[in-house]
Amino acid sequence: MDSSREKMVKTAARLLSERGYAATSFQDVIARSGAPRGSIYHHFPGGKEQLAAEALRWYAERTRFQIPDGADPALTAVAGYFAATAAWLRKTEFRGGCPFAGVALDVSPGEPLYTLVAETFADWCRVLEHAFTAEGCPAPTARALASLVVAGAEGGLLLARAQRDTKPLDDVAAQVLAHLRATLDAHRPTPAPGAAAAR
Amino acid sequence: MDSSREKMVKTAARLLSERGYAATSFQDVIARSGAPRGSIYHHFPGGKEQLAAEALRWYAERTRFQIPDGADPALTAVAGYFAATAAWLRKTEFRGGCPFAGVALDVSPGEPLYTLVAETFADWCRVLEHAFTAEGCPAPTARALASLVVAGAEGGLLLARAQRDTKPLDDVAAQVLAHLRATLDAHRPTPAPGAAAAR
Repeated sequence: MDSSREKMVKTAARLLSERGYAATSFQDVIARSGAPRGSIYHHFPGGKEQLAAEALRWYAERTRFQIPDGADPALTAVAGYFAATAAWLRKTEFRGGCPFAGVALDVSPGEPLYTLVAETFADWCRVLEHAFTAEGCPAPTARALASLVVAGAEGGLLLARAQRDTKPLDDVAAQVLAHLRATLDAHRPTPAPGAAAAR
Repeated sequence: MDSSREKMVKTAARLLSERGYAATSFQDVIARSGAPRGSIYHHFPGGKEQLAAEALRWYAERTRFQIPDGADPALTAVAGYFAATAAWLRKTEFRGGCPFAGVALDVSPGEPLYTLVAETFADWCRVLEHAFTAEGCPAPTARALASLVVAGAEGGLLLARAQRDTKPLDDVAAQVLAHLRATLDAHRPTPAPGAAAAR
């Protein structure tokens, strides 16, 4: 991706996160990114919808769960996701939420962007679900925990943005992590020392 | 509130929840509610902003936490809030999210509606925080749990809407309630039978 194209994609992600899809125009992206007017039509012949789709994919990639090797991989991934979300909020000076939330509101079932939003949420949840089952968690619980993580970050972002403070998001992250730790520990295949009697 | 006025307020709440503030017009409210064109200007001389503020207040009142008397008042209130959220999603046929989320995206700090959104989130959290401290939970934990509840419902609504299924929201509700129960139990002033030795 060349640098002016990349700048347009990132600018679009930021604008989508601030004001949604309906209120974001090519003109806004040009004005904010400083890109030359003609180049946006050159780079995105599919129009605003193409630009928005690329912006969402860029954000999804940036926010995607990285399940590391080592101790507590799922918890480490979740903590990293919440940290990336809080960093985005600070970077946008509390004006930006999640661009997926911004787009979800403005598109209808059947539109390609609607499908992209739904699939990305499902993809995030699937990655987490696998990470939880890999640590011994039964599938239905793993799926519910995955929804809790994504919902907690999305909702926490909304509260933090409204209060212009990352505190609510940080609080949600800490509570979600505590619940994950307790739930995963309760399902560990190898009992902790001293817990054997309870099984 | 007379019936045509009430109908306009409820219609506005629904439209705000479906498409946000920017994309909701008086014309849309008239078309959807079937209200006579002239009456909307009569009822809302303050314009769209006044109508939106009343719609948000109506929704906030409808969703406000009712802390009941009896056993487990806080958990009962939280369960009721999640149930009301899921009912709203079904009622809007998965097109409506939380109108506060819809408005939050379209207004800027300093605007009256922005303040209304931030104050309502803060108010929901405050009511919950008091309910949790009343059951023995320390204030910082109570505040964090309150953020978890509101964020979980807002984010769960977003996921459920994208998937056109209340399942993710129901899953989030169950996980949040399990975490609340465990956390409140850990702070109960009167230990459960058999737990005394651990204290």
